[in-house]
Amino acid sequence: MEYKKVAIIVAGGSGTRMQSAVPKQFLNLSGKPVLYHTIAAFATAFPDMEIVLVLPEAHFTFANDILSAFEHRPAVTLVKGGETRFHSVKNGLQQVTTPSVVFVHDGVRPLVSPTLIRHCYDTAISHGSAIPVVDMKDSIREIAGSNNAAVDRDRFKIIQTPQTFLSELILPAFELPYDPLFTDEATVVERLGHPVYLVAGEESNIKITKPLDLTIAEALLKDRQAIA
Amino acid sequence: MEYKKVAIIVAGGSGTRMQSAVPKQFLNLSGKPVLYHTIAAFATAFPDMEIVLVLPEAHFTFANDILSAFEHRPAVTLVKGGETRFHSVKNGLQQVTTPSVVFVHDGVRPLVSPTLIRHCYDTAISHGSAIPVVDMKDSIREIAGSNNAAVDRDRFKIIQTPQTFLSELILPAFELPYDPLFTDEATVVERLGHPVYLVAGEESNIKITKPLDLTIAEALLKDRQAIA
Repeated sequence: MEYKKVAIIVAGGSGTRMQSAVPKQFLNLSGKPVLYHTIAAFATAFPDMEIVLVLPEAHFTFANDILSAFEHRPAVTLVKGGETRFHSVKNGLQQVTTPSVVFVHDGVRPLVSPTLIRHCYDTAISHGSAIPVVDMKDSIREIAGSNNAAVDRDRFKIIQTPQTFLSELILPAFELPYDPLFTDEATVVERLGHPVYLVAGEESNIKITKPLDLTIAEALLKDRQAIA
Repeated sequence: MEYKKVAIIVAGGSGTRMQSAVPKQFLNLSGKPVLYHTIAAFATAFPDMEIVLVLPEAHFTFANDILSAFEHRPAVTLVKGGETRFHSVKNGLQQVTTPSVVFVHDGVRPLVSPTLIRHCYDTAISHGSAIPVVDMKDSIREIAGSNNAAVDRDRFKIIQTPQTFLSELILPAFELPYDPLFTDEATVVERLGHPVYLVAGEESNIKITKPLDLTIAEALLKDRQAIA
């Protein structure tokens, strides 16, 4: 079967919190907004990628400015964010009609590589889904009331995006009523009884949530350019 | 009771792995070796701190050079590292005789603050131990064979050092035979039936294990100096 490729890039819901100050996805990273890098990775991974950018309506102008900065403007549809991550993704999924591989990605993960995106695509085709994960590097303890105990970190993996699914899995899952236990797209798809398939993510595919993360991302970009 | 303060700073065992190339604790961080910063934090926290530096004998000359760089050379005893972390700490503990508060710290955590060290001291005095922890920021999944499931990251904390104990707890614990399940000092002390007490660590108290971590540490140091 021929699958379309649709990337749903989530860059903020309708909440007012995200609308104060400059949200992280619009901050400057090595000369371009964070979100520019994110969009560029998906546009580079597949020339026929369709991108759905989910963000507050108040940011549509910002987003259009970013798209205008591309030499070849990628195919991007702007969609309004919802009350929660679940609702934002659900809004984005309305753009998915024909059989597709759907990537759901955090707007604030600008360093995702086209290689990882293509690997998630191949895996979703063969296994239905692809959730990138990396090893846990820190020692951890489990807290239970006033008790705590060492746990083996090898039992756990850290989750990244793009969480990638065949549309035939993710579309029916997002018809479920919202549940606060839906912490990511994988938990929604699992609710319908589909196990998700893990793939190796990338250490450099970090989430930018605080100012220091931008500094780290700049260092990672510099490393990458030095290698290229 | 009057307690001495002893910091056991672990900077490599007897293994050959650590002796190839320049180990992370000797790399340059903002103009000084990583280990200089680590020692300085403990010397600053308490003027009467006794420092036991555990490292391969081949690195004693490096270590002495670092100590000579202090304007006021701190009281530091060099001790040979052992086969594992457990054996290295055990070697260091031979320097602890009178009742003490014992801090066991990773040499490659140079950004620990004197404030955190003093807080660990106070807590060990009142509760017997102090293990600094920070919240987990990433989403995680638990792996069980070919299955995996989302888990609530709020159940877990990330462990840092200095792991801090009254000598009356840590000395008898390190008389136990070595067990590969001893992943840190807390697990050793718990084996004798003493629960450990967690305290709030510091996001900036990172472990330097790869080149990028040095870049991050430099950015954190610059932030700190900008605030000071």
